[in-house]
Amino acid sequence: MVSALLRRGARRLLALCAILAFCCAAAAQPAPISAGPPDPKLIEDLVAAGRILADHGLLDGWGHVSVRHDKDPDRYLMSRGLSADLVTAKDIIEFDLDSRPVDTPGLPMSGLFTERYIHGEIYKLRPDVMAVVHTHAPSLIAFGDTNVPLKPMYHRAAFIAFGIPVFEIREKAGMTDMLIRNMTLGHDLAEALGDHPAILMRGHGAAITAPTLQRVVARTIFLSLNATLQADAMRMGAPITYLDIEEARKIEAREGHGLARTWEGWKKKAMAKP
Amino acid sequence: MVSALLRRGARRLLALCAILAFCCAAAAQPAPISAGPPDPKLIEDLVAAGRILADHGLLDGWGHVSVRHDKDPDRYLMSRGLSADLVTAKDIIEFDLDSRPVDTPGLPMSGLFTERYIHGEIYKLRPDVMAVVHTHAPSLIAFGDTNVPLKPMYHRAAFIAFGIPVFEIREKAGMTDMLIRNMTLGHDLAEALGDHPAILMRGHGAAITAPTLQRVVARTIFLSLNATLQADAMRMGAPITYLDIEEARKIEAREGHGLARTWEGWKKKAMAKP
Amino acid sequence: MVSALLRRGARRLLALCAILAFCCAAAAQPAPISAGPPDPKLIEDLVAAGRILADHGLLDGWGHVSVRHDKDPDRYLMSRGLSADLVTAKDIIEFDLDSRPVDTPGLPMSGLFTERYIHGEIYKLRPDVMAVVHTHAPSLIAFGDTNVPLKPMYHRAAFIAFGIPVFEIREKAGMTDMLIRNMTLGHDLAEALGDHPAILMRGHGAAITAPTLQRVVARTIFLSLNATLQADAMRMGAPITYLDIEEARKIEAREGHGLARTWEGWKKKAMAKP
Amino acid sequence: MVSALLRRGARRLLALCAILAFCCAAAAQPAPISAGPPDPKLIEDLVAAGRILADHGLLDGWGHVSVRHDKDPDRYLMSRGLSADLVTAKDIIEFDLDSRPVDTPGLPMSGLFTERYIHGEIYKLRPDVMAVVHTHAPSLIAFGDTNVPLKPMYHRAAFIAFGIPVFEIREKAGMTDMLIRNMTLGHDLAEALGDHPAILMRGHGAAITAPTLQRVVARTIFLSLNATLQADAMRMGAPITYLDIEEARKIEAREGHGLARTWEGWKKKAMAKP
Repeated sequence: MVSALLRRGARRLLALCAILAFCCAAAAQPAPISAGPPDPKLIEDLVAAGRILADHGLLDGWGHVSVRHDKDPDRYLMSRGLSADLVTAKDIIEFDLDSRPVDTPGLPMSGLFTERYIHGEIYKLRPDVMAVVHTHAPSLIAFGDTNVPLKPMYHRAAFIAFGIPVFEIREKAGMTDMLIRNMTLGHDLAEALGDHPAILMRGHGAAITAPTLQRVVARTIFLSLNATLQADAMRMGAPITYLDIEEARKIEAREGHGLARTWEGWKKKAMAKP
Repeated sequence: MVSALLRRGARRLLALCAILAFCCAAAAQPAPISAGPPDPKLIEDLVAAGRILADHGLLDGWGHVSVRHDKDPDRYLMSRGLSADLVTAKDIIEFDLDSRPVDTPGLPMSGLFTERYIHGEIYKLRPDVMAVVHTHAPSLIAFGDTNVPLKPMYHRAAFIAFGIPVFEIREKAGMTDMLIRNMTLGHDLAEALGDHPAILMRGHGAAITAPTLQRVVARTIFLSLNATLQADAMRMGAPITYLDIEEARKIEAREGHGLARTWEGWKKKAMAKP
Repeated sequence: MVSALLRRGARRLLALCAILAFCCAAAAQPAPISAGPPDPKLIEDLVAAGRILADHGLLDGWGHVSVRHDKDPDRYLMSRGLSADLVTAKDIIEFDLDSRPVDTPGLPMSGLFTERYIHGEIYKLRPDVMAVVHTHAPSLIAFGDTNVPLKPMYHRAAFIAFGIPVFEIREKAGMTDMLIRNMTLGHDLAEALGDHPAILMRGHGAAITAPTLQRVVARTIFLSLNATLQADAMRMGAPITYLDIEEARKIEAREGHGLARTWEGWKKKAMAKP
Repeated sequence: MVSALLRRGARRLLALCAILAFCCAAAAQPAPISAGPPDPKLIEDLVAAGRILADHGLLDGWGHVSVRHDKDPDRYLMSRGLSADLVTAKDIIEFDLDSRPVDTPGLPMSGLFTERYIHGEIYKLRPDVMAVVHTHAPSLIAFGDTNVPLKPMYHRAAFIAFGIPVFEIREKAGMTDMLIRNMTLGHDLAEALGDHPAILMRGHGAAITAPTLQRVVARTIFLSLNATLQADAMRMGAPITYLDIEEARKIEAREGHGLARTWEGWKKKAMAKP
């Protein structure tokens, strides 16, 4: 118990040092240089991704979606701090992987999402990940708070078969305000994510990854829907046949097939909202 | 049992006297004088608050939201009796803390919300409270009727950790029509609220408070959502890790951070409704 | 058992005779004469009632709402067979209490709701009833199929305390297509309703009554919502405090108070639908 | 065990042969010739059917609805691969019962729904079926995964009394990507459907049939709703009275009565969506 407290104390000290070091570095280092303008189609899709997730009730002013820069794997794109359904192309900002905004003179730090480190730290550890969502999707909260494992109910949510761990922030940082508000916590989360497609955050929400922007949106929608369906099925008092890992592998091998047409439907509906 | 009946009888007599006294006073006293025009931005936000809550299905023609006057802590602002989604700036009325309308010649009492005493009496006892909502949010009813304690499922509803009591009107007034229709019942409710952020009302709904208008709207939305999520989690048959009180304190200490941007999204959506 | 079969057989014979008698009578009798034009405001409210219930997901092309004629208690007003959200003032038809359309030359019987007898027969037996709804509201079906009694969860649904019986059509007519397709079945239903405010119909839906059009709409909305809330509460595994009959009586004594303003909000929202 | 593996191996070989044979045939055979233009009203209804189901949340870019050609029972009509809410009349394609598109030079195979074989193979085995829906309706998934039998809760869903089997693709093809991506799997599904009105697909969704386009839409809506209502009722801990098979037969004998007017309401609402 004592040693646990000591370890926790040491960890906090380290976290503090990391923050101080970052601040000093931020002051000392020049602002990162842009990797150049991304493909305008990527920006358009990023704006649509946020609108689609907001239209599904999965993003509000506290959640966000990002995509890796198509010209430089060490940069990612995300909106400044805005409710997803208010974002337009001109609100998209380029970040380096330490989650520092690039080339945005005059923009105050308070105009950025506090938890952008979720994105930067996952991009650092997972070169295969091209897009990330952070959501407070309601149906996921009960699974995060109870540690009941999510299992794939149907083919649209097959990726769940690869395992969805739960991040308990108390194990890393004790009692906090629950936010991933620095690189250290972002790194802890990315480590807990490991090779999995998504991770629940106890008492908070989830982070979801995918190899494309369209797939991270689909995964967020179907992870959330699967949670609802699984909770319902668990209450039916009968054994549940989940997707087998082999079925999931076969589905994921052709995943994306047909997604483009669903994307167009989602986008049309979301962009028509006032 | 007999003494209980006597106590109840005495209480009713007192309540009746209070009502009579109020009526006499109302007849005798001049109408209260206005504290002057409030900040137009406050009025705009109050109208938006009602629209946002109506858009979330949390207010109809029987619920209401108020804010303390920015020029005088002994006054509050609330609409006349109108469905929240029909209210405009010109429908906002100033009240004194006895819930008497200020400077509204010609407006009949029947044009006011019967339960405005919820607001006036809470503002009297709680100088820290700047905004109050009275709602019949459906998801809260089951918790009020069963006395199952609400617990915080995630950071957006952290304030629940400070305790949400239940008001049983029978203990104060026996069998009633359930309404808080005078200062005495309003005072009873405010006393039962104590220092808590909100109180459920058995067989009726809830009263929610906050230090700002934006936060009382957010608290109403997340109190309601938390009830749904908690009921779902309780059915999963696994232990639930709720937010710790220390986590809640840290979250509340920076609460409001980021709320402004979610507010803009909510407002845009609500005001676009026909 | 044998006597039950005999009784059932006798009953069917009676029903058949009733139908035959009706047909003969319909052929022999002249069409009923109109009681004169109703108050245009009543027609406007009847159209709005259907739109509001459709907007709440409680009426489609198979449910209907009617109101007693303001000039003649032996007449009622209801739309011809149309989806509630398509009805306009010119679709409203006058019926006598045998549910025969008045003064509508050229309108084929197939253009009327088959189950209009629900309305006519209730108006016959219940002079206090001024408006009737027949709905297939989803949340009511499970209560009708299980015979679990509906109980009032909160003040908006207080009238439930007066008892909501369940109509089992098999007891009256054996195996049927479930429809109240003649005066005999309508009479059976009205008898089972008795003095209650509403009745569930097993495997079918419900019939709801009230002393005004606005209240029958409110009762339909809150009966349906109460069913959802009660089912949720029953799963919480804790004793439920329902409204007491005395509370319900006090609420009903002033029921309608404040309903007009909620009605305006509902109507504005429903009529704005394309 | 060994023999099971052998049987499975043999089956896969057969499936492969079938695919190869189909490809050769497709290359060798001329494209099928059109049966001529269908009734424009049928096309209009087919487009509306997809929009109505999308508006109910029952079709997206991965589900589809088809109708048998009114001029030739060996042809069916379905949209090219598009999200149902984006389909217009010009997107409707004619298929032969081997699910080969007719007269569509220049259209790549990737522009078609992979699972169109569901439709073609059902039309082959079931001459009475005039319309087919393939959906991933969320409420059906739990029933498919648990094998809990669907039972009819109320008259709108009476057809469920005729039995809704579950298709376990593993029994036919082992571990797959769950899709009905060729004639062999389509035939297996159609055989499992037998004479039933619909079939659930474990871990995937459902296929629903009917003698008309309007009825297949209504059946999809009410199959989905019935699943929700039945799951709710099962949790009430009381015996449930389902519709009797005789009640269902009587209802189905006049099924369609009144559907036209509900269809108009659904269509108006769905077509008004942007």
